[in-house]
Amino acid sequence: MKYEVLVEVRLRPGIADPQGATIERALPALGFEGVDDVSVGKAFRLSIEASDEPAARDRAVEMADRLLANPVIEVSTVTVLDGAR
Amino acid sequence: MKYEVLVEVRLRPGIADPQGATIERALPALGFEGVDDVSVGKAFRLSIEASDEPAARDRAVEMADRLLANPVIEVSTVTVLDGAR
Repeated sequence: MKYEVLVEVRLRPGIADPQGATIERALPALGFEGVDDVSVGKAFRLSIEASDEPAARDRAVEMADRLLANPVIEVSTVTVLDGAR
Repeated sequence: MKYEVLVEVRLRPGIADPQGATIERALPALGFEGVDDVSVGKAFRLSIEASDEPAARDRAVEMADRLLANPVIEVSTVTVLDGAR
C-alpha cells in the first residue's frame, strides 16, 4: 500500500535563519502585525510503498535522517498524511 | 493568544521539480526502494497573535497567498499546530 508522507525539515533553535528574519521584518509593512518566530525550512512529500502506516513512518524517519536533513543543524518531523490508497 | 502555524508551500502538479526528481533517483542507491512522487517545497513556521484559532488560520492563509507562495506555480497548505499558549 502507498502512504503519502510529509517530512518537514527545519533549522535547530539557535541556528541563524536569515530567510525567516527577513520575512518577519517584511510582514508589518504588508499589514501583518503580531507575527513572530518565523522560520523557513523544507517540506518534502513522498509516496512510500509499505505494509502498514508504522512501517511507512519508520522508513520516512530513516530517509529524513540519512538523506533529507542535516542532523547537525536541522531537525525533522514526519507526518503520515493519509492511509492506504 | 499565540498560535503556532505551519505553512507548507509546494509546486503545483505539472511544474518541474528537479530537486524532487534528483532525490527520487538517489533513493534506491541508498537502499530505499518503493518511494515515488517525491516533491520538495518550503515549510514556514509562524507564531501568530490572534483572538482564536480560525482567526490565526485566516491570517496565515492571507500571508501565504500574498507573501509566502507564488500562486502562479505554487499551492499552500495551512495547519494550526497547537492551541493557545
